[in-house]
Amino acid sequence: MKIKFLPLIFLSSIFSSNCFSQTQQENLIEYVKPIIGTEKMGHTFPGATVPFGSVQLSPDTDTIPYAVDGKYNPDVYKYCAGYQYGDSTIVGFSHTHFSGTGHSDLGDFLIMSTTGKLKLNPGTSDHPENGFRSRFSHSSEVAEADYYKVNLEDYNILAELTTTTRVGFHQYTFPKSDQAHIILDLISGIYNYDDKNVWTYVRVVNDTLVTGYRQTNGWAKTRTLYFAMCFSKPFKSYGAKDFSKREPYRGFWGKLDQRKNFPELSARQLRMYFDFNTDEGEKIKIKFALSPVSCENALMNMHEDTPSWDFDAIKNKGQQLWNKELNKVVVKMNTREDMINFYTAMYHAFISPTVYMDVNHEYRGVDQATHTAKGFTNYTTFSLWDTHRALHPLFNIIQPKRNNDMVKSMLAHFDQSAWHMLPIWSNSANENWCMSGYHSVSVIADAIVKGVYTGDASKALDACVTTATHRSYEGIGYYMDKGYIPSEKDGSSVSTTLEYAYDDWCIAQLAKKLGRTEIYDQFIKRSQNWRNVFDPSIGFMRPRMSDGTFRKNFDVLETDGEGFIEGNAWNYSLYVPHDPKALIQLMGGNKKFIPHLDSLFTMQLPDKFFANTEDITRDGIIGNYVHGNEPSHHVGYLYDWTNQPWKTQRTVRMILKNQYHNGAAGLEGNDDCGQMSA
Amino acid sequence: MKIKFLPLIFLSSIFSSNCFSQTQQENLIEYVKPIIGTEKMGHTFPGATVPFGSVQLSPDTDTIPYAVDGKYNPDVYKYCAGYQYGDSTIVGFSHTHFSGTGHSDLGDFLIMSTTGKLKLNPGTSDHPENGFRSRFSHSSEVAEADYYKVNLEDYNILAELTTTTRVGFHQYTFPKSDQAHIILDLISGIYNYDDKNVWTYVRVVNDTLVTGYRQTNGWAKTRTLYFAMCFSKPFKSYGAKDFSKREPYRGFWGKLDQRKNFPELSARQLRMYFDFNTDEGEKIKIKFALSPVSCENALMNMHEDTPSWDFDAIKNKGQQLWNKELNKVVVKMNTREDMINFYTAMYHAFISPTVYMDVNHEYRGVDQATHTAKGFTNYTTFSLWDTHRALHPLFNIIQPKRNNDMVKSMLAHFDQSAWHMLPIWSNSANENWCMSGYHSVSVIADAIVKGVYTGDASKALDACVTTATHRSYEGIGYYMDKGYIPSEKDGSSVSTTLEYAYDDWCIAQLAKKLGRTEIYDQFIKRSQNWRNVFDPSIGFMRPRMSDGTFRKNFDVLETDGEGFIEGNAWNYSLYVPHDPKALIQLMGGNKKFIPHLDSLFTMQLPDKFFANTEDITRDGIIGNYVHGNEPSHHVGYLYDWTNQPWKTQRTVRMILKNQYHNGAAGLEGNDDCGQMSA
Repeated sequence: MKIKFLPLIFLSSIFSSNCFSQTQQENLIEYVKPIIGTEKMGHTFPGATVPFGSVQLSPDTDTIPYAVDGKYNPDVYKYCAGYQYGDSTIVGFSHTHFSGTGHSDLGDFLIMSTTGKLKLNPGTSDHPENGFRSRFSHSSEVAEADYYKVNLEDYNILAELTTTTRVGFHQYTFPKSDQAHIILDLISGIYNYDDKNVWTYVRVVNDTLVTGYRQTNGWAKTRTLYFAMCFSKPFKSYGAKDFSKREPYRGFWGKLDQRKNFPELSARQLRMYFDFNTDEGEKIKIKFALSPVSCENALMNMHEDTPSWDFDAIKNKGQQLWNKELNKVVVKMNTREDMINFYTAMYHAFISPTVYMDVNHEYRGVDQATHTAKGFTNYTTFSLWDTHRALHPLFNIIQPKRNNDMVKSMLAHFDQSAWHMLPIWSNSANENWCMSGYHSVSVIADAIVKGVYTGDASKALDACVTTATHRSYEGIGYYMDKGYIPSEKDGSSVSTTLEYAYDDWCIAQLAKKLGRTEIYDQFIKRSQNWRNVFDPSIGFMRPRMSDGTFRKNFDVLETDGEGFIEGNAWNYSLYVPHDPKALIQLMGGNKKFIPHLDSLFTMQLPDKFFANTEDITRDGIIGNYVHGNEPSHHVGYLYDWTNQPWKTQRTVRMILKNQYHNGAAGLEGNDDCGQMSA
Repeated sequence: MKIKFLPLIFLSSIFSSNCFSQTQQENLIEYVKPIIGTEKMGHTFPGATVPFGSVQLSPDTDTIPYAVDGKYNPDVYKYCAGYQYGDSTIVGFSHTHFSGTGHSDLGDFLIMSTTGKLKLNPGTSDHPENGFRSRFSHSSEVAEADYYKVNLEDYNILAELTTTTRVGFHQYTFPKSDQAHIILDLISGIYNYDDKNVWTYVRVVNDTLVTGYRQTNGWAKTRTLYFAMCFSKPFKSYGAKDFSKREPYRGFWGKLDQRKNFPELSARQLRMYFDFNTDEGEKIKIKFALSPVSCENALMNMHEDTPSWDFDAIKNKGQQLWNKELNKVVVKMNTREDMINFYTAMYHAFISPTVYMDVNHEYRGVDQATHTAKGFTNYTTFSLWDTHRALHPLFNIIQPKRNNDMVKSMLAHFDQSAWHMLPIWSNSANENWCMSGYHSVSVIADAIVKGVYTGDASKALDACVTTATHRSYEGIGYYMDKGYIPSEKDGSSVSTTLEYAYDDWCIAQLAKKLGRTEIYDQFIKRSQNWRNVFDPSIGFMRPRMSDGTFRKNFDVLETDGEGFIEGNAWNYSLYVPHDPKALIQLMGGNKKFIPHLDSLFTMQLPDKFFANTEDITRDGIIGNYVHGNEPSHHVGYLYDWTNQPWKTQRTVRMILKNQYHNGAAGLEGNDDCGQMSA
């Protein structure tokens, strides 16, 4: 299905007029600059991926520990996507990355090519020569849709990457060497800490094929990722170093030398290497396939996805996929800069959720069992607190088939969940419970009401209701009994109450569509609960105590733990997306509301507020309007419900110009799996 | 197939005459006393199992750590089977045990029932009241074939256990209590050390069903065992305590209380509990099914194996299985003590190897992938250095179908092995490389030559040859080049050389049978290599250096690391089981050999020698003859090749009377998976 029209209101004013008339496929990938957002807070990655690919293969410029001396290391935050544009060394290329998240995981199976004396530690950015990492410069770096290239200067190796949905395809052009090495680092990872690696297993099947798995305990608490790795040229020898603390019992293993040419290894902390002789300019290629289920499935994925060793063919196929996706919206804009902003945003919007299923449709469920996705493609990486706002509604319009499959994936999650709940923030067969609300219901209701979902709608509604009435989950019991979450019970009591109210409205709309009146009545009533945390005496949403009184100690500029999360009372008080008219009325009507809204964008904030704001650069805040975080993304549109709707166009254009730029630092806040770009 | 005759030469003289005439099945399980060998060095367990069962459910009287302050804890050795008769407390009942090994692992999924205040630590044997363990006494203890009963005195709970092949069936008779608990301990294990638990996962499916797995890094380096646990009565609440070191990142998990009624848990160190109200005399039963493949398979195993909650029916079925097996040899002996010795030995011989396959024939291969056993039952627990001597030859006669399947299991192992080797000591989809030789070949050759093996014999021979020519494995390269393993290269160079020579003779016989002359010629030549470590100047086998000279520093009484393992030069010099005539001749013929052999059984050993001897009690040594370890098991029969063959009968009878007794201390050495008993 190919829909060509304009879903993005805030972009409409800058389009040229012929955007509906395109029929020929245009070469739009030239406007995709994956490097945008790789500096500071964007947390995007510059590497190679196909749309919604399982493999997202990208350079890691550092893999620093999550904690130092047992204490959280704030620097780790920079490396949510493994890459920071300001860095000058590359540790290697790993196969899985989140795009734009504000917490992280993944970075599995780091590959590095070197020459000379074998080094099995990564070294430091200050002294790259002490480890296997290499210096690089942006002048040799090319980052396109599904293609990344860089020169590894310390070894004079040209590294090129491309991917299919389930396979990372590497091509390394070596100098002449009788000491060429390819390192497979099973320790390296993003947001790594000492105990994160639960177990790793490697099996050298023959002199071109290696299989295994990495099992981690990270943001995804119980996660195993299997691989099959195939070399285009046989290695002459191989070996491993186990960096685990010594285990007390090694028994008869002592009689075997596990360091060299030992074909089966398992340990907590393992790095492997493979040795080659290379001629000048010789290319060694690697196919690296992933599976959430088994090594055999990874091998099957490899055979299906990459039948040949033709790097350019794989790359071209991947870029065609992107062109096809980007052609779903064909626009002409005044400047190349605008075109790049637009299509790179579209690119970033089409990276997550990610396919989580082998070519035979097997995947790991959130119950840790192997399932088969019957009649749909299973997805993971659901950052729903972020993406329910604009990304999934966008998908509903220009990715309806995928959005249908994503809803089916969420409902499969529900069926498998030990908690009998829809996903909150799910990844790799795990629920990490990140952020608040039960926003799956918003995505599901939208897909059903708009006719995109092809499954059993009534069953989907039941899943929404079960999730929304799970009394022991984050204050839902209080919310059901009192109509709000008491301040004593939850640090983000107000924002959670507001989000529940919006989600409840979504459930009500779905129930209405399906004619299930009792549920409609129950949830349309619940959707009014936002009123219970509004303090008319100050005109803001405000934390409320169990006894019904509003919290005395309260600052409208405070955020996390003070009744709110990622948005203070100024921003969150505007969060009634399902009933802006009523909100405006409660806030004093046009006369009071419009100046109030104007002042949000212009007021001066005290410095301490910037220090308290996570996830965004200082430039991610306009006045007191926090675009870099999600709860305000609808705020510019609120003027449309006043008698000055033109201010929406002005404000949205201002936000767009202010917050989205070309260049590595082009995003002012975490891209959050595509929500910012959407 | 039911064969009733006398396979055991050394028992023949004490049989009554009517042993061939039985047709009716006799009640032979009354002679089975699983308690035999549970004191000191026998390392057997008293709990419940069916013949060759996957589940071997037995009380653990202690689960002490493998290492204390990083140093090996010699006391752990007593608990190879989890139970020591001299102890006065029971920690709980776990589902997997080795029978008679001299190193250990397993002890998975310990269940304990308690009343009163919940305790989630095991306590100590000195102060059982500080933990959940309970005092017990042998007066309340009943240990039969597939049935175990004991009173847990601290809680006045009667515990009863029985099993099917894949399910442990517990029955606890409680007193009246509103604080009755059943503890599921996922930390406890045999030969446990801090890092042994790699990961555990538990899912509370509903109020009677729990599933999960335990993944360990022990003797089996990479091992996962799945379970499904079903209660006969719904629990009223449940909870868990995570004893892991705190992990740095818990993120949004902090908002969820994982200690109480939390349905999905994963951690390194976890204990769970389930709460009940019980009436006086109320029975709560548990079905606990295992699978090497998945939780779903464990559940399937449970449904197939134990369709009802009738404890007595399960127990009776298990005991019938034992009666059927024991009736394969029907003997009458003069005393009940002899009958008990005989049938308990037969019982112990029929515990290992163990079935390692789900009811749908799926199992985990040594390549860590899931396989399906097509047309055979897959077995594991192959202690082949021990069991190739008498246990598998016995199986060839009275368990031919199983021995055929065991050989098929070994060849499947070969196909899956990253080393392309037959099993050495394999367990639970892992090779642990314990002890020396490649004795699979002896079992395989015996099964093929005697017509028991129904698979592709030629392919089996190829597997034997590939294994025996794996140059990098324990000195095989040296052995092939020099005809012996040089003393500098291997601490047990002599015993390994001797064992290879015997195994090579087995390969030669198999090649001869199959008409593969070239292989016959090669291996019959290799089988003469025993001559290369015989020093005629002293009349003993002796470590030999790379340069061909015999090692100067040498004591005929020394064992481990001095050229030998588990048998000194006196014992190992007699180890040429394939050519005793040649050995006797080389040792001076009857005139010199017979007095030499006589003196073995009568000589006085210096005290230091006892201190150096592992695995056996002081009574496990007769003179300098070490029956408690395996390399001498054929020695008594050597008289048959002299002109005083009657001495074999005298000596074997003497050994039998001396080494096998009724009572807990009835075995003088490790039973070694049934070899001693066989």
